[in-house]
Amino acid sequence: MKLSEIGEFGFIERLSKKFTDISTSGKKGIGDDCAILPMDERYDLVVTTDLLVEDIHFLRNKTTSYDLGYKSLAVNLSDIAAMGANPIASFLSIAIPSDLDVEYLDGFIEGYKDLSQKYEVALLGGDTTKSPEKLTINVCVMGKVEKGKARQRSSAQPGDIIAVTGPLGDSGGGLKILLENIHPRDASYDQLLQWHHRPEPAIKEGRKLTSFPGIGAMMDISDGLASDLQYILKASKCEAVIDLSKIPISDELKHVSAEQKWNAVEIAVTAGEDYRLLFSINPSSFEKLASQYNQEFSLPLSPIGHIKKGDNPGKINWTEKGKPINFSGQGFNHFKHQ
Amino acid sequence: MKLSEIGEFGFIERLSKKFTDISTSGKKGIGDDCAILPMDERYDLVVTTDLLVEDIHFLRNKTTSYDLGYKSLAVNLSDIAAMGANPIASFLSIAIPSDLDVEYLDGFIEGYKDLSQKYEVALLGGDTTKSPEKLTINVCVMGKVEKGKARQRSSAQPGDIIAVTGPLGDSGGGLKILLENIHPRDASYDQLLQWHHRPEPAIKEGRKLTSFPGIGAMMDISDGLASDLQYILKASKCEAVIDLSKIPISDELKHVSAEQKWNAVEIAVTAGEDYRLLFSINPSSFEKLASQYNQEFSLPLSPIGHIKKGDNPGKINWTEKGKPINFSGQGFNHFKHQ
Repeated sequence: MKLSEIGEFGFIERLSKKFTDISTSGKKGIGDDCAILPMDERYDLVVTTDLLVEDIHFLRNKTTSYDLGYKSLAVNLSDIAAMGANPIASFLSIAIPSDLDVEYLDGFIEGYKDLSQKYEVALLGGDTTKSPEKLTINVCVMGKVEKGKARQRSSAQPGDIIAVTGPLGDSGGGLKILLENIHPRDASYDQLLQWHHRPEPAIKEGRKLTSFPGIGAMMDISDGLASDLQYILKASKCEAVIDLSKIPISDELKHVSAEQKWNAVEIAVTAGEDYRLLFSINPSSFEKLASQYNQEFSLPLSPIGHIKKGDNPGKINWTEKGKPINFSGQGFNHFKHQ
Repeated sequence: MKLSEIGEFGFIERLSKKFTDISTSGKKGIGDDCAILPMDERYDLVVTTDLLVEDIHFLRNKTTSYDLGYKSLAVNLSDIAAMGANPIASFLSIAIPSDLDVEYLDGFIEGYKDLSQKYEVALLGGDTTKSPEKLTINVCVMGKVEKGKARQRSSAQPGDIIAVTGPLGDSGGGLKILLENIHPRDASYDQLLQWHHRPEPAIKEGRKLTSFPGIGAMMDISDGLASDLQYILKASKCEAVIDLSKIPISDELKHVSAEQKWNAVEIAVTAGEDYRLLFSINPSSFEKLASQYNQEFSLPLSPIGHIKKGDNPGKINWTEKGKPINFSGQGFNHFKHQ
């Protein structure tokens, strides 16, 4: 049997099953953005790791080495943000093809360092080795969060509002510009490319949300809303209703989509790598949070639907201005697409 | 400028320099087997990560998937052992070529799990993705150790005895059997292959050593004695005298070397992946430790030389039965060798 038949998640399921005999002694592992390890009486440690492989996660000729360094760390910081934690340290493993220039690596280090500096994340170690061909990067980041405050995917409740912290689809739009070799016509194109290359991890936003009463489940949108929301729904054993007309879309994506005849809503719902936060919240708390959030971040929180009881845990019931529609949002699965 | 011109350590040096501005707030990072992070009042957390790339670190047709899974974890547990810590959790990232059978991965998981179970290490997360060609594995392991007890490379003192916890060169002998396509003639050959494929991380030995007064620097031998000892000497700013006649060599390596006309001493000094512990200890403490150790592990500790002051930090002065000899032990550098 080939891997493509069981997919990435099939493999992770096989893996998890094998390890059920080994006690985790209060630690929480596979199945969330980060693992959670009790640290001391006040804090929990959260840990995440991401593996980026050339030609699977990035194309060397479609990105600068600075952006690659920046993004390698950003995607991990985003997982830390999704737990409501503060990042404290990173570990960088890198397998380097021997034809790579030192100047290229200097650019990579610069991008990685600039984002480390912004969030005061110390680089505490890693591993460096030769690669036969493909540049391969593994980053592991640790963070800390007040005990019991880390947000998990399993905490959504029927009736909760589902909301996101920013417009969706910008990164997907940027990726389409790259892959379709579209020449950027104006600043909107540049904006989409910018978010694709240098997404901002929502560390401060995650900290705000996790401190607010009534917050349920939380995660970052890395594979695309349609795909990622299902993880929350499966872990929380419920369904969701999502209204496509409420999905926040930036003016830039609307503008470029109009020119390029793209379906902006479809990109916003299915494309990955936006790294906005997706969370559920008790409806009685939402207005107060939205107002505080708006004041602090000058950005609106966008409610896009709600959690509901249902017989098909993981199911998303799509609506358009309140009316049920047929829509199959398909996410990203490394073994099946690409 | 190409990477091969500056080597792996040149790159790590460039990397470390860039990060000197970012505060590590009491944490210790690059330059030891593990990073050290203060955890609570009683314990420090230690963290290590290793990246293994097909055709650089292993050949898919020269190892079983079970052994590959076992060894991917073992090399990291060995770094934890070198700090005198107990492992508590691991994170496994794996990039999988799509031609790989699920059965192969099941074997990998089985080997990884069996060693996890032996040392009660929970698998708390990781990342799974497709690889265009090469199987690539990154493992990150955390451990904990009593506060201030983690052994570092910089703690060797002139006058200290240098010792190792077991025979050297078995793994190197096993590798030669594989690479030279030698058909195993007897159990000695199998023993060398076994240690190459399934080295035992010296967790209990490391725990014993770190608890003993008078222990200075400690590390695991992964690149080879001649290469690894230099890290201790550079970090501790001293030289060493090592007597080749005192290097412990197993009967199995002696026997196979005699048959194959290998230089067993050279293999023992230069070949990597033995994962024995290398440490320095105050001479007044050594006898007592050696006797306790022998009783507990039924294995001798082997003193092989001593630390001395000198103008060339990192220099190893080789002797043979006390007489200076000319010997250039060359270690392993991923960018220059293979």
